[in-house]
Amino acid sequence: MSLDAVLAQIDDDLDAAIERLMSLLRIPSISTDPAYAKDCQSAADWLVADLASMGVDAETRSTPGHPMVVGHVGEGKPHLLFYGHYDVQPVDPLDLWNRDPFDPAIEDTDSGPVLRGRGTADDKGQLMTFVEACRAWKAVNGTWPCKISFIFEGEEESGSPSLVPFLKANAEELSEPDLALICDTGLFDKDTPAITTMLRGLLGEEVTITGPDIDLHSGMYGGPARNPIRVLSKMIASLHDETGRVTVPGFYDGVPELSDELRAQWDALGFDDASFLGDVGLSLPAGEDGRSVLEMIWARPTCEANGINGGYTGDGFKTVLPAKASAKISFRLVGTQDPLKIRSAFREMMTNALPSDCKIEFKDHGASPASVMSTENPAFEKARVALSDEWPKPAAFIGGGGSIPIAGHFKNILGLDSMLIGFGLDDDLIHSPNEKYDVRSFQKGIRSWARVLAAVTKD
Amino acid sequence: MSLDAVLAQIDDDLDAAIERLMSLLRIPSISTDPAYAKDCQSAADWLVADLASMGVDAETRSTPGHPMVVGHVGEGKPHLLFYGHYDVQPVDPLDLWNRDPFDPAIEDTDSGPVLRGRGTADDKGQLMTFVEACRAWKAVNGTWPCKISFIFEGEEESGSPSLVPFLKANAEELSEPDLALICDTGLFDKDTPAITTMLRGLLGEEVTITGPDIDLHSGMYGGPARNPIRVLSKMIASLHDETGRVTVPGFYDGVPELSDELRAQWDALGFDDASFLGDVGLSLPAGEDGRSVLEMIWARPTCEANGINGGYTGDGFKTVLPAKASAKISFRLVGTQDPLKIRSAFREMMTNALPSDCKIEFKDHGASPASVMSTENPAFEKARVALSDEWPKPAAFIGGGGSIPIAGHFKNILGLDSMLIGFGLDDDLIHSPNEKYDVRSFQKGIRSWARVLAAVTKD
Repeated sequence: MSLDAVLAQIDDDLDAAIERLMSLLRIPSISTDPAYAKDCQSAADWLVADLASMGVDAETRSTPGHPMVVGHVGEGKPHLLFYGHYDVQPVDPLDLWNRDPFDPAIEDTDSGPVLRGRGTADDKGQLMTFVEACRAWKAVNGTWPCKISFIFEGEEESGSPSLVPFLKANAEELSEPDLALICDTGLFDKDTPAITTMLRGLLGEEVTITGPDIDLHSGMYGGPARNPIRVLSKMIASLHDETGRVTVPGFYDGVPELSDELRAQWDALGFDDASFLGDVGLSLPAGEDGRSVLEMIWARPTCEANGINGGYTGDGFKTVLPAKASAKISFRLVGTQDPLKIRSAFREMMTNALPSDCKIEFKDHGASPASVMSTENPAFEKARVALSDEWPKPAAFIGGGGSIPIAGHFKNILGLDSMLIGFGLDDDLIHSPNEKYDVRSFQKGIRSWARVLAAVTKD
Repeated sequence: MSLDAVLAQIDDDLDAAIERLMSLLRIPSISTDPAYAKDCQSAADWLVADLASMGVDAETRSTPGHPMVVGHVGEGKPHLLFYGHYDVQPVDPLDLWNRDPFDPAIEDTDSGPVLRGRGTADDKGQLMTFVEACRAWKAVNGTWPCKISFIFEGEEESGSPSLVPFLKANAEELSEPDLALICDTGLFDKDTPAITTMLRGLLGEEVTITGPDIDLHSGMYGGPARNPIRVLSKMIASLHDETGRVTVPGFYDGVPELSDELRAQWDALGFDDASFLGDVGLSLPAGEDGRSVLEMIWARPTCEANGINGGYTGDGFKTVLPAKASAKISFRLVGTQDPLKIRSAFREMMTNALPSDCKIEFKDHGASPASVMSTENPAFEKARVALSDEWPKPAAFIGGGGSIPIAGHFKNILGLDSMLIGFGLDDDLIHSPNEKYDVRSFQKGIRSWARVLAAVTKD
């Protein structure tokens, strides 16, 4: 096999690869909103058809939620299991987009051409980098580099309710590979590739406070009647102390301090706190006192309100004392923090703060611990060297602020180590209006996977 | 003239009067939502046509917002100016209504037949009690009891932005009457009529906090990035101290303590705190420590959050750090509290609490001081006796928790005292789903006005 020929084929086929990605991006596969269930099925079908066109034995497998795509192809060691997700985030507020989020296009920007649209970076564009690397490899060599299995999920953006049962039910088939590859992370910066070896966990909670049975007139009841917005605001305000630490009892159990070695490595990356915050219009780090921004994102746990709603929120004014107020609250977790213990301590703390004539309800929006990868498998170092060959600067082992629970599930259910390699950038606006993915990320991402496949299949 | 004949005519004509009210109720004149502007115009036109059918010289007068209805008719002293409002509150949450809010009907309930629908009690049903009393008087006597002017407003539920300019521009015409009558208040209880002589003022504010320029991914930015929901929650939590007092500096300037005399009168009313709160599913008075519920509602100022919104509030979960969060906050005012001083102290307090890299915006949703009526005009005592003749128990002079700024404007701009008489009940669900107005309130309300007209025109 010739790696150079594969890389040349990738470059020659780039326009066609972009067209293929565009057609996947046009499917509005928003998993969290039941109105888009058919579109999630369509995205899964699209992937099955694309894999099948390359000779992969692929099919959709139904779940109680959106379907899984599973495929197998090729022969030889190591047997790799590639994971991506075809579902995307909701698109609101729609009026802040510069185009229809599901009518993607290439736009020229100061930092080069980008693909603009929902899912370009998270995760359709990323998962297609691996698929396209495989396509080019097969086109040039006529064979596959090794045995490769694919699993594409359709519920990553909605807490992956079907994933664990599916992995358990198909553990025999899916634990056969030697190593998992996951493409849902970023570069360290535009010139520095990265293998993410630490990922924060995620605990999602929804809290609803009910005061009076019905919405009340604030003239008639204002004063004696309990206001659930005030109750909820006080609860949210109580979740952090003056130093920015989370006040949920036992929250910091299992949060490790950074080793001197890792701290030194991260200091050497030269991360620019001011420009990281300045890029999104902020200037003051808002987290715990005495922690660097990189430490806050990669190695410290958080508690945030992701949504709040209560009373009249339309145009104008309505002097109502609302019956209900609710908030969506999430915790990012590190080290060995136990999500279920934290959920129960959080619920107890909220319930204790409740006035005795109010009611409180909780809704579970998923719980996954942090993942810390073992880098002892030689594939990690081979991949690091292969990535360093493609990009201007050498690859680094880094942390990740977001949660990719799949890596933990692969370890716990299938016994598989995961190698997390991705090509996203901090300014990709994932989960926000105007999400984009650099054409350079897409092209060099495909080339990176070709290099990684060559490296890990070489003795 | 014969009062008995007028009362008999009112009873005979009740079904037709209800039909007329129904047709006004079917017009969805929601003033706060620009989508219903045409319906507000239709409600004004309906009133002009109805007044004209009785010989009133009536017309709509345009304003920058929804039109005023003004009419004049009759001769003789005292010249009365009757005020009501034809606009209604929004109807959300619509799914909590037991019927289309704009398809009113009579429903039988345990406490007798009620008119169910938006505006039945606030204020279309109430304003029609006076109109129907006039119609019966005219039908029986062929003449009017005295000179009567009408003014119907269409922006009462949205802060009355056009009212003050309109009263000022038409002061010569509208200051000619001797006394204003306002029908937008309630009975003390179902058997005790009331003339409201103290009304709380209202200050409305909308606060929007902006943190980052765009919505952020809470994995990528959670920790160092400022979360405007947390900033806003902390601000709302800071607006009250542990004893329930409002913490805005200078807030209690101009708040009088109740006189021993008035406190004794109110104690004598035998108000039942437990059942007032119990009726709406509450049990603990939530206001200032050491104040009775009646005092909290009638004679103490408040600060309440009427709406809050930020981040993702749809189905499912979205791990977003939102760029913005906003709240609608209102203050009920008493005595001589100055709404503009309080607005400025509130804004300064909020701004001082703002992290330096966030932005804060305020939107003005109206400001009106409390009204305290002079009861020295003999019409007050005449009306009290007339009301006592109609209802099982004697009429009382009471306070009112809601704001009816019109009484203050009539005093300040037109030099007119106002007599506030209404027939609503605490369980009318005004501003809430399933608003209703008892048929008994409507019928005895019409009869009450006939008695008051007879009483105040007698020497």
